[in-house]
Amino acid sequence: MEGIHGGDVYRNRVKIDFSVNINPLGMPEDVEAALHEAVKNCSRYPDITARRLKKAVSGMLDVPEQFLLFGNGASELFLAAVHAIRPEKTVILVPSFYGYEYAAGAVDGEILYYETREEEGFCPREDLFSLLTEDVGLLFLANPNNPTGKVIPGDMLKALCIHCRDRGIVILLDECFIEFCSGDVSMLGDIGAFDNLILVRAFTKSFSIPGVRLGYLVCSNRQLLGKLQRQLPEWNVSGFAQAAGAACAKQEEFLRKTAEYIRKERQFLADGLKQYGMTVFEGEANFLLVYSKQDWYADLLKRGILIRDCENFRGLSKGFYRIAVKGRAENETLLKEMGEIYG
Amino acid sequence: MEGIHGGDVYRNRVKIDFSVNINPLGMPEDVEAALHEAVKNCSRYPDITARRLKKAVSGMLDVPEQFLLFGNGASELFLAAVHAIRPEKTVILVPSFYGYEYAAGAVDGEILYYETREEEGFCPREDLFSLLTEDVGLLFLANPNNPTGKVIPGDMLKALCIHCRDRGIVILLDECFIEFCSGDVSMLGDIGAFDNLILVRAFTKSFSIPGVRLGYLVCSNRQLLGKLQRQLPEWNVSGFAQAAGAACAKQEEFLRKTAEYIRKERQFLADGLKQYGMTVFEGEANFLLVYSKQDWYADLLKRGILIRDCENFRGLSKGFYRIAVKGRAENETLLKEMGEIYG
Repeated sequence: MEGIHGGDVYRNRVKIDFSVNINPLGMPEDVEAALHEAVKNCSRYPDITARRLKKAVSGMLDVPEQFLLFGNGASELFLAAVHAIRPEKTVILVPSFYGYEYAAGAVDGEILYYETREEEGFCPREDLFSLLTEDVGLLFLANPNNPTGKVIPGDMLKALCIHCRDRGIVILLDECFIEFCSGDVSMLGDIGAFDNLILVRAFTKSFSIPGVRLGYLVCSNRQLLGKLQRQLPEWNVSGFAQAAGAACAKQEEFLRKTAEYIRKERQFLADGLKQYGMTVFEGEANFLLVYSKQDWYADLLKRGILIRDCENFRGLSKGFYRIAVKGRAENETLLKEMGEIYG
Repeated sequence: MEGIHGGDVYRNRVKIDFSVNINPLGMPEDVEAALHEAVKNCSRYPDITARRLKKAVSGMLDVPEQFLLFGNGASELFLAAVHAIRPEKTVILVPSFYGYEYAAGAVDGEILYYETREEEGFCPREDLFSLLTEDVGLLFLANPNNPTGKVIPGDMLKALCIHCRDRGIVILLDECFIEFCSGDVSMLGDIGAFDNLILVRAFTKSFSIPGVRLGYLVCSNRQLLGKLQRQLPEWNVSGFAQAAGAACAKQEEFLRKTAEYIRKERQFLADGLKQYGMTVFEGEANFLLVYSKQDWYADLLKRGILIRDCENFRGLSKGFYRIAVKGRAENETLLKEMGEIYG
């Protein structure tokens, strides 16, 4: 699995890691305190029904508690969806997060890759609909998408939900990066309208706690929820995850600040990167997909800066890089080092 | 899922919990320190290859690193085994831990329950072999077994391994409670000899950290290991679990003390329970299965003491209880309260 994902600070000498996409504002103090408190309680089994966490997240999202299911990271929920549905065919848009392909590959079905194109801003076209026939069981979508940062327009997303509902296709919509977007691009408000929609989010990126492992899904289809739950191990959400998650769910002001901070820094970083000959694909997330003929990965790694080389993303090629939006000081360091390398 | 497992202190008012089976010596100090340290590091993704943890556990068990696979608790590994093997038929001995049945039920195959009998000390008989035919894909065994505490004799265990190997049956041998046993009853030393053997253990019980979620499996069959790994989510082992596990792996003296402490306290508790009319099934684990016609569950719960009512264990009936071996003071409290109730 090495090399498939960013963030491999365990096998690289890294001063600043621009290859992972977590909140530059760090972990909220209340969350840190909750985690230390969880150490004291870890001689107890975690609550198998995650009651306190469920209540807190239900309040945060304003959705009924029974719509929620928690996982040991979003990755566990992707795998549970594949196990629950056992699709004959799964449709995955590329380029996108490798985790969908990994999850889909856990069962025998076929994977159909739908390629979005650079010249169309990596947005799906109308011909995606004709690929979604009744023998497809599952469609993975991401909003915003990783590594492109692109958001599928709301009208198209709703049309896809209707099209898939009519054909018995479940849509797993990954909104793990949605809290970094400005404006409301979530499908959360429509969750009750589509019984074929599974919305997945994670706390790890928005609250800088990827070491904790905590994701959740929202779905209004009770039967589907039962099938998903059945594919999750018992006690899958650790005491640490439950404590941290309950604390995260109260951080509305932190999330508001985050979206605002990312909006400004993303612009600052994009402007800077363009100065050094990079093509920047403007997106809505806390990272930027860029293209350059210069070998920035190797040049920056020599200076202790890790960016994500996207050559191994299906649907991309040599020259694509993904760069996280970090704090101002780190973003300035990146641009300064690039200035010294450039040319 | 409520009521299926012990330890539900979230829905009962409990002063002392004898329904869960964790180490009465508590969490080692080094492990607690490692967990607090992990809070500081939790803005990093956990190492996807768990390299440090793998090295430490390999050293502790004296098995090659490539034989090891880690899970978000043993329960995740049970489910991964079922997903990897997709057995047409699964054999489960009863009474035993509900988790095997839960895992086996995640796929479509048939479950065959083999009943062990009270009058035979809940040990399997020779007729177990005739049930294990070539259409069986997976056999769950536990040593010592939960809730009986019984150990399958080594000769029989090896004969089962050979019988199953010859018929292409994988044995998942749950040794989650083995560190509470005195004497060497593990199959770890034979792991290289049986390519159909998956040995599962957990850190949560031995080191009193069920809130952390960390189990592991040992298997010498490279192909089978690959299939098991493929059914686990990426980043399934949290930063907390990796840090705690690496610290646990160095606690050899603590484990030695634990086995000695449990041996003495188990005897003390068994002697006491017999005084109050209980039939005690002597076992090797850190808990005791008992039988009594008196409704001890309700009577003790009124006094804030939770024991495990085993009526809902497949293969048991009303009157069976499982009582954890705890520290001397708590064991004395239990016996004192029982003395006041008895009669």
